[in-house]
Amino acid sequence: MTRNSDEQASDQGREPNDVVRTTRRGFLAGSLAMGGVIGVGTDIAAADRTMGESNSNPRLFRFVGGRIGGWVVRSSRAVIGEGLPSVERLDLGSGTTAIPDGAKWILRGVTSNPRYTTRTEKEQLVRKQAALGRPEATLSALIPIRKSAKWWELTQDERRDIFESQSKHTTIGLKYLPEIARRLHHCRDLSEPEPFDFITLFDYAKADESAFDDLLAALRATAEWKFVEREVDIRLERAS
Amino acid sequence: MTRNSDEQASDQGREPNDVVRTTRRGFLAGSLAMGGVIGVGTDIAAADRTMGESNSNPRLFRFVGGRIGGWVVRSSRAVIGEGLPSVERLDLGSGTTAIPDGAKWILRGVTSNPRYTTRTEKEQLVRKQAALGRPEATLSALIPIRKSAKWWELTQDERRDIFESQSKHTTIGLKYLPEIARRLHHCRDLSEPEPFDFITLFDYAKADESAFDDLLAALRATAEWKFVEREVDIRLERAS
Repeated sequence: MTRNSDEQASDQGREPNDVVRTTRRGFLAGSLAMGGVIGVGTDIAAADRTMGESNSNPRLFRFVGGRIGGWVVRSSRAVIGEGLPSVERLDLGSGTTAIPDGAKWILRGVTSNPRYTTRTEKEQLVRKQAALGRPEATLSALIPIRKSAKWWELTQDERRDIFESQSKHTTIGLKYLPEIARRLHHCRDLSEPEPFDFITLFDYAKADESAFDDLLAALRATAEWKFVEREVDIRLERAS
Repeated sequence: MTRNSDEQASDQGREPNDVVRTTRRGFLAGSLAMGGVIGVGTDIAAADRTMGESNSNPRLFRFVGGRIGGWVVRSSRAVIGEGLPSVERLDLGSGTTAIPDGAKWILRGVTSNPRYTTRTEKEQLVRKQAALGRPEATLSALIPIRKSAKWWELTQDERRDIFESQSKHTTIGLKYLPEIARRLHHCRDLSEPEPFDFITLFDYAKADESAFDDLLAALRATAEWKFVEREVDIRLERAS
């Protein structure tokens, strides 16, 4: 329960043997799915995987707003910039999960290695945090954000300084563990253009909803948040 | 000529106005291209962009090995782990460039924000480095690498320590500027599974070929390279 869910996801399909075994086939299928119009050469013809759904980064997740899904949308609010079209339900799945009928929007992101966490911080996080999906966590929030070009032009030391030394991002988050569980997804370096840079999915029990609001208020007051140019706050409740 | 080509690529299509303007359409089209089987809802029907080629991260590049392309393959060597099928030519293009006939393999990667560079290092790099494509740079090298699961389980401070404090990655690279130009592409967080984590494209004049070999030898002798589990070294010459 206390293992870092990001790290778990990061491990999927990355065992060296696995990678060696699937390498040739994997990248050829990937290319085919992307190129669309590719000519069939000797080696490419050997890629017998079908195009599309099954050809997905094992760390890819997709979030579908529409009228079908395991989470009821209680509210959707544009915090900074443009919102998202309102929908009744959210469907969560991996990159290979079929898209339900009636989808109004789809967001996607991959779990990846943390970009700022130190060993000391990681040990604190792993010791305290819970993975998503606890039975009592009947409330959830999906919060996609985009940071400004100015943020991305900063160097690693400058971003780390703002993220932690100035904004205490990890320190703030730690205070709310293990009650608030979360999984971070990166969208900026996907193959297709995405409207957000990050998507964070949180879950928590009803009793912890006000703590979650406090967490968000604390983060939104930081120096780091001055670089957020779009943020949507979608609150969810597990469908019974 | 001395501007950081990675940074230039990172800026493309990331102007805030641009993003705001294309957001809705962009992410809907992206989703369609990915999902394949999506049902047509009200908002999705509004996404009038065609699927496939034109729907690409503006920082995405693809490298196609086959029999057509602007670069003649002089050699292809598996340095660590499995090699790549031998081909006559390499075709370089952005994510939207059509794939030529006879492609044997396709690799893809996105330019992104540097993960380890400090402000001081960035200023040194920007002052000295050249962008790819100088007329005298008739030789090129494409070097895809994959790092081990062990590398990706390290925290940011540990990776930075190995990358620079122990291995002097940037310090070594700086010695070979501006003669050796390079552009780094990230593959690990693309939407599809990729066989490599990074692809670096270098170019240089014939007179600098032995300097380039020295650079690679220096990097391959570092502590960082103990985490490289696959590396292919493809040498190219501009087709006349």
